[in-house]
Amino acid sequence: MAINNELTFDVVIIGAGPAGLTCSIYASRGNLKVAFIDKGAPGGKMTATYEIENWSGEENIKGYELSTKMLNHALKLGAKHIYGNVIRIENISEFEHYVYLENNQKIKAKAIVIASGMDNKKPPIPNIDFYNNKGVSYCVICDAPFYKNKPAAIIGGGDSAFEESIYLSSIASKVYIFIRKSYPKAEPKMVEDVQKIDNIEIFYNSEIVELFGKEQLEKVKYIENGEEKFKEINHLYPYIGFLPINYFAKDLPIFDANGFIETNENMETKVKGIYAIGDVRQKSIRQIVTAASDGAIAGKILTNKIKK
Amino acid sequence: MAINNELTFDVVIIGAGPAGLTCSIYASRGNLKVAFIDKGAPGGKMTATYEIENWSGEENIKGYELSTKMLNHALKLGAKHIYGNVIRIENISEFEHYVYLENNQKIKAKAIVIASGMDNKKPPIPNIDFYNNKGVSYCVICDAPFYKNKPAAIIGGGDSAFEESIYLSSIASKVYIFIRKSYPKAEPKMVEDVQKIDNIEIFYNSEIVELFGKEQLEKVKYIENGEEKFKEINHLYPYIGFLPINYFAKDLPIFDANGFIETNENMETKVKGIYAIGDVRQKSIRQIVTAASDGAIAGKILTNKIKK
Repeated sequence: MAINNELTFDVVIIGAGPAGLTCSIYASRGNLKVAFIDKGAPGGKMTATYEIENWSGEENIKGYELSTKMLNHALKLGAKHIYGNVIRIENISEFEHYVYLENNQKIKAKAIVIASGMDNKKPPIPNIDFYNNKGVSYCVICDAPFYKNKPAAIIGGGDSAFEESIYLSSIASKVYIFIRKSYPKAEPKMVEDVQKIDNIEIFYNSEIVELFGKEQLEKVKYIENGEEKFKEINHLYPYIGFLPINYFAKDLPIFDANGFIETNENMETKVKGIYAIGDVRQKSIRQIVTAASDGAIAGKILTNKIKK
Repeated sequence: MAINNELTFDVVIIGAGPAGLTCSIYASRGNLKVAFIDKGAPGGKMTATYEIENWSGEENIKGYELSTKMLNHALKLGAKHIYGNVIRIENISEFEHYVYLENNQKIKAKAIVIASGMDNKKPPIPNIDFYNNKGVSYCVICDAPFYKNKPAAIIGGGDSAFEESIYLSSIASKVYIFIRKSYPKAEPKMVEDVQKIDNIEIFYNSEIVELFGKEQLEKVKYIENGEEKFKEINHLYPYIGFLPINYFAKDLPIFDANGFIETNENMETKVKGIYAIGDVRQKSIRQIVTAASDGAIAGKILTNKIKK
């Protein structure tokens, strides 16, 4: 396959969420030739978020609006937006890498930044998607404040489910944790902490099977020990696992056991010249601003590393 | 001294820059009772920055404007703004701390977040302040892109000076490094890297003594080996050291050798219940967005930790 000279960049960023776009902004300001690739609308998870109220300085902004502002900022500084699905990356040496797209394009880069984000595992509730942004959310810290003092539920028995229930308990009137198994998977200390909180109740052997509510989530049907029951719930957070988006880099030795990418504080992975930022990176708190911060750091480091 | 009940908070944040204000936003959204204290105008270093072009989504925003937006966001969520100079903090136990202000106020908090930032050391050039935002800046990554392909200078012989000169060399037409001593203090590997870059020139035994230019910096006068010389320079960055603002916490065992505060990735210091975020924290890259990210992380962690 011949390499088109126009498709050679200093930095190729895979993913155009807040991490990728901020990295693009910083690297372009450092005079690097930058491209960012996304198979969807730029903005990442923000595009699927109705309202954002925790991006400092914006009391309330629509997800698509913040996405558009960041995209325009990145484009204005000269970065190229490539629409496409990355199927493979190849690293030849520290400053020579290739990105292969589904449409047979091959792009050369002095450095690659993986900013591909993650998906949330969805529980098998038939009408769950209807309630996205109407009570169902995959981020307690983002959306719980929209439902202050209203009853909430978390689905899941692992560390994230328990940890988020603690946060949620300070905002919601009541928190129900629905766990399919008869025991929690979370670490014992965290389970203990949760059990001490008055307004949290745990249902074991329980599974939510249907959601109700005309405009907004109002009620859930669940099966507990084989018995059908109902509970008034206004906001529901499945925490049954995350799926880092990493299929195009599977053969690189950069992942932890859960498929997230390990980096140092400069966003460098174990493979020289390959960086990772945002939700796909192994870290404890995933927010728009923490993703953007990752992007800024990588952009700055890249400007120092790459010779033109 | 009696404790006024109205001056008891879940979280008291010292400093109202992007780190402190974002922490306030996150902690308030977590239903905590928050106060932030500043002795100056809220916004921190942003208030003294004329234009900001690297806050994602804002191609160009005035420093006071972004400061005001973040301040209003924090206030809207219910945080209290206290105007005052913190002279001492005292920690009794993990969830009991006191903050003493110069005006004799005593404030009780379940947690303290230090977000007091840092000052830049200024070289003794008589008219240097006149050129603030007119060519003189203490942040290459923030301001060099305003002066693309124009000759620049850095003052200083340490690691920061050399590191920033590398970044600057990709943006400026030419970079002069002015070092007072006859040798660099930076680590040898970095000096080597800099010496390889074509458009960087190092002047030893040299000191800038006067700046010229009507509206914007145009020229500098410097003394090299006792001889008076001139050089055309449009942007100038002193990197002769930072002064973390920490006088109110001197007796706490939380500092590194340079006076910055050491934390883990959750922004926790060695003293339980005391957190540090933003520029005052020991870290490698200091930007508005990295400060805001620190604040978000601390705000989230605090919401999980503090019982109401």
